[in-house]
Order: sequence, then C-alpha cells, then structure tokens
Amino acid sequence: MPIITLTTDFGLSDGYVAAMKGVIASLAPQAVVIDITHQIPPQDLFEAAYVLQTALPYFPPDTIHLVVVDPGVGSARRPLAAAAGPCFLVGPDNGVFTYALDAHSSPTCVHLDNPAYWRPQVSRTFHGRDIFAPAAAHLANGVPLTALGTRLDDPVRFHLQPPHRGADGSLHGQLIHVDRFGNAISNIPGAWLAGHACTVQIAGRQISGLSASYADVAPGQLLALVSSAATLEVAMRDGNAAQRLGLAAGEPVRVVLRDT
Amino acid sequence: MPIITLTTDFGLSDGYVAAMKGVIASLAPQAVVIDITHQIPPQDLFEAAYVLQTALPYFPPDTIHLVVVDPGVGSARRPLAAAAGPCFLVGPDNGVFTYALDAHSSPTCVHLDNPAYWRPQVSRTFHGRDIFAPAAAHLANGVPLTALGTRLDDPVRFHLQPPHRGADGSLHGQLIHVDRFGNAISNIPGAWLAGHACTVQIAGRQISGLSASYADVAPGQLLALVSSAATLEVAMRDGNAAQRLGLAAGEPVRVVLRDT
Amino acid sequence: MPIITLTTDFGLSDGYVAAMKGVIASLAPQAVVIDITHQIPPQDLFEAAYVLQTALPYFPPDTIHLVVVDPGVGSARRPLAAAAGPCFLVGPDNGVFTYALDAHSSPTCVHLDNPAYWRPQVSRTFHGRDIFAPAAAHLANGVPLTALGTRLDDPVRFHLQPPHRGADGSLHGQLIHVDRFGNAISNIPGAWLAGHACTVQIAGRQISGLSASYADVAPGQLLALVSSAATLEVAMRDGNAAQRLGLAAGEPVRVVLRDT
Repeated sequence: MPIITLTTDFGLSDGYVAAMKGVIASLAPQAVVIDITHQIPPQDLFEAAYVLQTALPYFPPDTIHLVVVDPGVGSARRPLAAAAGPCFLVGPDNGVFTYALDAHSSPTCVHLDNPAYWRPQVSRTFHGRDIFAPAAAHLANGVPLTALGTRLDDPVRFHLQPPHRGADGSLHGQLIHVDRFGNAISNIPGAWLAGHACTVQIAGRQISGLSASYADVAPGQLLALVSSAATLEVAMRDGNAAQRLGLAAGEPVRVVLRDT
Repeated sequence: MPIITLTTDFGLSDGYVAAMKGVIASLAPQAVVIDITHQIPPQDLFEAAYVLQTALPYFPPDTIHLVVVDPGVGSARRPLAAAAGPCFLVGPDNGVFTYALDAHSSPTCVHLDNPAYWRPQVSRTFHGRDIFAPAAAHLANGVPLTALGTRLDDPVRFHLQPPHRGADGSLHGQLIHVDRFGNAISNIPGAWLAGHACTVQIAGRQISGLSASYADVAPGQLLALVSSAATLEVAMRDGNAAQRLGLAAGEPVRVVLRDT
Repeated sequence: MPIITLTTDFGLSDGYVAAMKGVIASLAPQAVVIDITHQIPPQDLFEAAYVLQTALPYFPPDTIHLVVVDPGVGSARRPLAAAAGPCFLVGPDNGVFTYALDAHSSPTCVHLDNPAYWRPQVSRTFHGRDIFAPAAAHLANGVPLTALGTRLDDPVRFHLQPPHRGADGSLHGQLIHVDRFGNAISNIPGAWLAGHACTVQIAGRQISGLSASYADVAPGQLLALVSSAATLEVAMRDGNAAQRLGLAAGEPVRVVLRDT
C-alpha cells in the first residue's frame, strides 16, 4: 500500500487537512496517509523543510511526501513534484524541499502543469486540495512522475548557511530547531565533536563536555549532547532549555574543541 | 473500504477520541477513520457544522461523517443518523448537521433508539463512545440505516441568517469562520460579486476591489477575495487579518457593488 | 490487521511521532496505527498512565499499546514489553503501565534487550524510534514476546494512593485527571455511591446530590456525577469546573453519604 505523508501549516482546527485527505481517499483509496505535522508556524518554510527531514529518512521506499506551506499560492510560484532518491516529493516550489533535494544527487523534478491531473476546478487559494493532493494520489496510483508535468531543472533551494570550522579550530553553527521539550537542535554535526573534549557556547552560557543522555546530568542542569538527528543539541534535564536561555532558531552556537 | 470521519470538541489531550476509535476498530476493523478536527471549541455547534461542511464535499460516496459536539448528552436530545445525498451522518440531533442536511433534498433520518446497535452499557455522559461510534461502525458494516432506529422527519436545524441583497443593491452577510491564518470567511457567495467592482466594509474598514490571490497585494496589506469554499473572504497577506481587525464569527460584512 | 496505539509526550509540532510511524510502516506495513494522544505534558508519567487506561479497554484483543513518555531515556531504566490480559504493552519500564499491568493478574514482561529487534543504530535520546517502535512492529508481525528479550518479573509500578472509606463512613479520594472541558475526574468508584444520597466536598465547595447527566442542572451550575470511566466526576454545566474552582490532579475529594 503506497504511503503519503502530510506536512502543512494548516493547524488542526480547520477543515483544510481533511479536505486534502478526502481528495486523496477519492482518487487513491488504497493509499495510507500519515501526518508528519500540521503545526508548522504559518508560512515558516524553514521549519517545514527541517521537520520534514527529521521524519523522511524513516519511511519506506516510494513514500510520497506532500508538503503544503505555501505563502505564494495563486502567484507565479510553480507547483512541483520530484523523485529524490527513494521517495517522491509534492508541493510548492518555494524551498521547502531544500534538504530533501540536497540529500540525493540528480533528483528528477516536474512542474505540475498538466491539468489532467488537477481537480476539475482549481482555486487560487488552496492548491493543497486542488493540485498537490491530486498529484500525490496519482503518484500513489502509479502514474509516472513525468506524466504530471514538464521537466524543470532549477527547483528553488534555500541558501542555508552551513556550519564551519574557524581558523582557531572552533566550530561555528546555529540553532535550526527548538522542539516541544525546549531542546535546541543545531546544525553542527555530532561527528565533528567525536574524540574531543569540548565547551559549547550559546547565548552567553558555557556548557563543558558532551553528555551521552539527558539522564547523565542532575535535574535542572544544562547539557550538550548529540541529538537523535545526529547534530549537536543543547538541553536541560527535566526542563526547558530554550525557555530558560531564550533560544530560537538562528541563535549562534560555537564549540571549542580540546584534544583528549 | 468504508470511511468514517470524526469531528468533535474533545481536543487531543484526553483518551476520548481514541476510545471511539477503539470501539470502531472492534466492530468494523476494515473501516478507515479520518479525523476532520477534534479542536471544535467546547460545545460550539455552529463551528462544528461549518468545519464539517468545508471538508465533507471532498470525501467519496458512502463516507460516514460522525460528529460529537454534544452539550445535551444524557438529556432528551435524540441521537441521530441520516442518509443525506451520497453520505451518512451520525451524531446528536442538535443542529450540527444543518448544512449537511440542507445540502440535499429529502434526507432520511432515524432516531438511534435500537439498543441492539449500542454498546452493551451506555453511559449518560459519553454517547460518542457508547451510541454514535457503534452506529457508524454498523453502517460501515452494511447495516441498513433504518435498522438503527425509528424514522424521524424533524431533525433539528439552526435558524441561520442567510446573506441578502439590500434595497440599494449592496450585499449583507456575516463572518461564519476565522481560520488558523486569521482569514475571515463570510457567508456571502463569491458568485454574487462576479462581474462587478466592489468595496467590502468590515469592522470600520473599507477594502476596495477583489483580489484573485493573497500574492496580489503587498505583504501586510488587507485584501478581499473568494475563499476556497467559494464565499467572500477577508485576509491579510503574510499576516493575520482577524487579529489585526478584531474579527470573529458573527461580525457583519457589507459589500457595495459598482458596474465595471 | 494488527493495531498499534501511540501515547507520547512528543506533541504534534515535531517530526518525532512521524519518525516512529515511518519505522513501523517500514517493518510492519500492514499494522494500523491509532494515536491515543501525543499531548501528555512533558514527562508526566501519571497522566500518561491514566489517559492510556481511559482508551485501552475499548480496543480489540491483541492490540499493541506503545507508550513513550521517557525521562530516563539513555539511562539504566529498562525498555519493556509485556502481555497483559488481551493486549500488549511496549515502552519504558518507569511506571507508565501501572494501571494496565494491575488490571490483569500475572502479566508476562520482558526486558527488550535483544538487539536483533532494535534498529541497527540506537541513539541515546530516542528509544521510541530505535527500540520501542521496532518492538511494536515485530509484535505486530507475530514475533513472540519472549523473543524480544529476557523475562523480568519486577516491572516498575507507581505507588498509587487508593481511595478509601473513613471511620465515619465518608469516602476519601483525589482527582486523577482534568479533561479538556474542565471536568475533574476522581479515583472514587461510582459504585461506592450507589443507593445513597451524598454530598461531595472539593476545594472548599459542597455539591449536594449526584446528577445523572450534565443536562440535569442549570447552565453554569456545578454538579457531581459518575464519569464515563465509572468514577466520581465534578463538572460545570456548559462551563469549566476546573478553571472555576482551581482544580488539578491531586486535589483531595471527600464524599459524605447518607441513606436514602
């Protein structure tokens, strides 16, 4: 049974998500629909791109990932579908697939410009229901990607500032996500810290050493560790580090390494 | 596979929704359950009726729409099931199905008074679990609607104030929903504005002209457009119109039309 | 089709729940996954144990209940699976299954220490994805419980203070849950009140008599009734009793009985 995942900024109070699920159920009743999240802050493309990427690698091959965070709906921004490695991507061509496209060499992308695969009436404000959900359903039904529209070779990607090593050997990155627990996830690969003692500097605080798990420190204490996404994370045992330190995505993070 | 949708005011923190899903899975394991929303404000029948209607038309024929917003549970209010056009409705007879029943001539309604299709023990506070979920499951199993109870011909409907044209040709309606983005949806059909220039008056503001999409105006600017539900909507590009103007359901909306 | 339910404190904004669903879909694509809740307050084991128990009895036999509220992840706390009566339990051995284990004599428990049934890489911070979701999926695939690890006979249970009868015949208990509606659920069995007139004392208020349903009193009035979980509940008709009286789990409740 084909799987379609959904990631949107629609929230859970309106009928928008269900309208998309109704369209999918009508066109591809055998598809299994799995929510990633509908709580992306309105129009926050970076957050959508990141959250998608924290779940995407765990789905089986041929999963179709449908993302609708779409401030440009109804404008000239293109509706997109892509085959990137083992999975399919469907959504607006506005950068939400930056990580997913970058993870695989030579993805195949199409502009969803074939109206035969749209709903008969297309609104100017809800392409999730009228273009993207049908595209995902048709992919689930085995329609070839390239039937859905014209090839395109320049999908929009964010210009992400990558983490880097300073001249003095220190590591420089930034927070890319704060989760429900207030754990602050950076873009610095955990592997860069392996085999070193370190001090993490963030928001005027210094955290010495890398813990293996939350339970390695006392309740209420700050710690640095490698996150479940394999990057450097700052957390507080049994507490909310982001609230305590006033952290949000974009906050700079610096790591000083010492040989052990 | 039969589809059962769920619309409740139970929220997502308690076990109530899952108890209903467990009852359905026990009685009709082949049914696919799709959430519309569980975030209806407690006991807000109008909101439930509206949100249901924004999703209902996109589901395939024979879908069973189960709604539990039920301030009168345990009182004399009747438990209801209906066949309305291509779909089934199950829930309290308190007006939540007003739009769904009005959309089709001569729906068939029954009072769910046949205890053979209830759970063996029926509480006085949770008919969603004890009467409505079983009824939906039995419909999914092919039990005829009329086996579930006695015919009734007077289902409760809200007295909704319809939009109307004033003596001077202007259009009068009201907001019926504010969505997650702060977009304010009115009950004035978009078709009534077609072929005219217009000025929309709401909360002391005037909005000139009808935009085709959010991206037609500058960020932060108010606009009027036809919503994805085909009625007049007031929005703010990349912003929250309802918060900015203090809008809520019930707010009057007036449209002055001019020939073009 | 096997059913796996999910109860976590992960919230709905991150990709954590979906990562677990992706793991399950990869290993046991035929399993049906049903959310109980992901809104358990961070690390609130008591709330998780209670909410699980309000839904668990309504699921069919062989359902696998996966709970991840896991403040001790990465520490010495054991990962657990159990067969308790007709259902399976999977999650951290920290007390979240207290009610579920107590409901059945002689549950069979195992320490999930067989790495053949883990994901190939196990993080120190996300056993939900790396140990518990795989264990649930393997159970759904028919792997015997005892293949997943070593038998253990001392699963962690909370020391719950049970309700009791005072020397004067009055009933003493406490609130164990406040629901979305502000209804306050106690641990005093409704059956203890049967056949008596009563006065309920809570937070300095007295409520005389037991109502059969919310609709038995006037809007805005406090009432006591037997909850859908068959215990004493304090509510306010068309209002929020917990907010009005400042109630939370742990609040003492006393009931004075009189013969009728």
